[in-house]
Amino acid sequence: MKVVITGGAGFIGLRLAEELLRRGRLTGPSGEPEAIDSLLLFDVSEPPARPAWADDRVTFQSGDISDAATVSGLIDRDDISVFHLASVVSGGGELDFDLAMRVNLHGGLNVFEACRARSGLPRLVFASSIAVFGGAGMPAVVGDHVKQTPQTTYGMTKTICELLVNDYTRKGFLDGRSARLPTVIVRPGKPNQAASSFVSGLFREPLNGEVCRIPVAPETMMPVLGYRSIVGGFIALHEADGEALGDDRAVSLPSFTVSVAEMIEALNRVASGRSLGEIVFEPDPFIEAICAGWPQDASHDRATALGLPKDASLDVIVENYIEDYL
Amino acid sequence: MKVVITGGAGFIGLRLAEELLRRGRLTGPSGEPEAIDSLLLFDVSEPPARPAWADDRVTFQSGDISDAATVSGLIDRDDISVFHLASVVSGGGELDFDLAMRVNLHGGLNVFEACRARSGLPRLVFASSIAVFGGAGMPAVVGDHVKQTPQTTYGMTKTICELLVNDYTRKGFLDGRSARLPTVIVRPGKPNQAASSFVSGLFREPLNGEVCRIPVAPETMMPVLGYRSIVGGFIALHEADGEALGDDRAVSLPSFTVSVAEMIEALNRVASGRSLGEIVFEPDPFIEAICAGWPQDASHDRATALGLPKDASLDVIVENYIEDYL
Repeated sequence: MKVVITGGAGFIGLRLAEELLRRGRLTGPSGEPEAIDSLLLFDVSEPPARPAWADDRVTFQSGDISDAATVSGLIDRDDISVFHLASVVSGGGELDFDLAMRVNLHGGLNVFEACRARSGLPRLVFASSIAVFGGAGMPAVVGDHVKQTPQTTYGMTKTICELLVNDYTRKGFLDGRSARLPTVIVRPGKPNQAASSFVSGLFREPLNGEVCRIPVAPETMMPVLGYRSIVGGFIALHEADGEALGDDRAVSLPSFTVSVAEMIEALNRVASGRSLGEIVFEPDPFIEAICAGWPQDASHDRATALGLPKDASLDVIVENYIEDYL
Repeated sequence: MKVVITGGAGFIGLRLAEELLRRGRLTGPSGEPEAIDSLLLFDVSEPPARPAWADDRVTFQSGDISDAATVSGLIDRDDISVFHLASVVSGGGELDFDLAMRVNLHGGLNVFEACRARSGLPRLVFASSIAVFGGAGMPAVVGDHVKQTPQTTYGMTKTICELLVNDYTRKGFLDGRSARLPTVIVRPGKPNQAASSFVSGLFREPLNGEVCRIPVAPETMMPVLGYRSIVGGFIALHEADGEALGDDRAVSLPSFTVSVAEMIEALNRVASGRSLGEIVFEPDPFIEAICAGWPQDASHDRATALGLPKDASLDVIVENYIEDYL
């Protein structure tokens, strides 16, 4: 079977690809495990260098996800699965509404329509976000049954795609599942336009001996999860029994609810002995406003019942990052 | 100021137009009441005859709401308000997914974008539906804070437009409000493709001396509201203070929760002395399945707090229909 990952040249897309190659098999549209003979990583640009793990099953392709013909050209076999990760991120979406609509909404529609055009019933995993929650009516803890009143264009487009995945699934156009991601830590590389980018930065920059500027207060709470569990969660959700998912195919992944101060404490515990760059608090009202609109705490009963993975602890997440990237 | 009603040649569109002309004024983008000097009724086709109440302020225009240029041509002044009622109905959306997407989703986007392009901040009232609720997780009573997991393409597209109205409002592109309609009674004329069409039919056909076939069981419960309160609700929501609406601009209109049997009892009470056509129960699995997925009961605390109107009783709704149409 073929697997397509949109946003495949991103951090999570690449890690997902590597893990899929390692496993070698996925449940295909037949409902049976099938060998992955082709893995297409689609993104707005190709990665600067071909990763060492990318064997001859792997193809990189760059293009515009808002172009329907491009997207239908990616999803060109009936024995196929799609992980739809491509997205304008939260801060980027606040800065460029039209880009967020084009990539997140119309790009999503293109992916769903391309799946629908196949004669099999492709499984599709959509990367949603807990930014679908927000607003004055949001409860202290957001679970899978909480009303979605997002306060960012990013969250709005993610909610819309969850609704589309549910309806395309109900209509028998595809077999969809939406994984609602908490803040993912620890992203390597450079900061990005996600409003939550600093959360990875507060581990990454000090470990690189660099100064890290935190745009929110130390007591800011947020649900986080390590990238290994994010990747494991995508795959577990792909493999989950559709009947067990029922008519709402969107599941909040497991998460830890921690403060910025607690994350810094975990860094200091795990990195004891290393020379760390300084952490400076420099409030940024733009970022603070976005983060204030997001859930402070999240439950994940359905994810747990479905067996989706959760890192053993915050410290383990930091240890994994050091092992994988330093 | 100008007022545009999409779906303006439909039953509710025409009644809304008549009531707006009678009132003569609305709150404009200035925040002050302004005289309505132009009322444009846009629909897929013009009404068969120009209504007697349509004075020289009124223009009818037919066209395709999924064509962006057409829609931006309608919304061509800065001192403007829009009532966006155009929609493929529930049963029609189940029969033609692509049409529902084109009219309800892309048509809605065209309307919102055309409002955004104005230099004022047009008020927009979007006709949503309690069909936004549904699914296995739906509580017995649906209120404004209940998660929206619609089980029809119609409900899905209505939910998406609610989300868009909220985000376009948050971004300052327009000043939107969504009115979530229960089943509207009593629609005159012919049955339509709405799965709830029989609910008006059970009053209308017997009063016309015709046989009415009911596709669901007598104990089927649903929230209903009379068309006079629907029209009054649209206007009251247009006039409501935006601050009082907060960040979730979607409000379920008031409703009565009644069974099919109770509606037949009301008909028999109000129409005593008239010769009524027979009512025959003929279950239709397609309609039953759609209705079973809809809310059986709805609360409307926010609507009540905002002063949105509610008919005095079910009997009064039937009396109004007899007065207005027979």
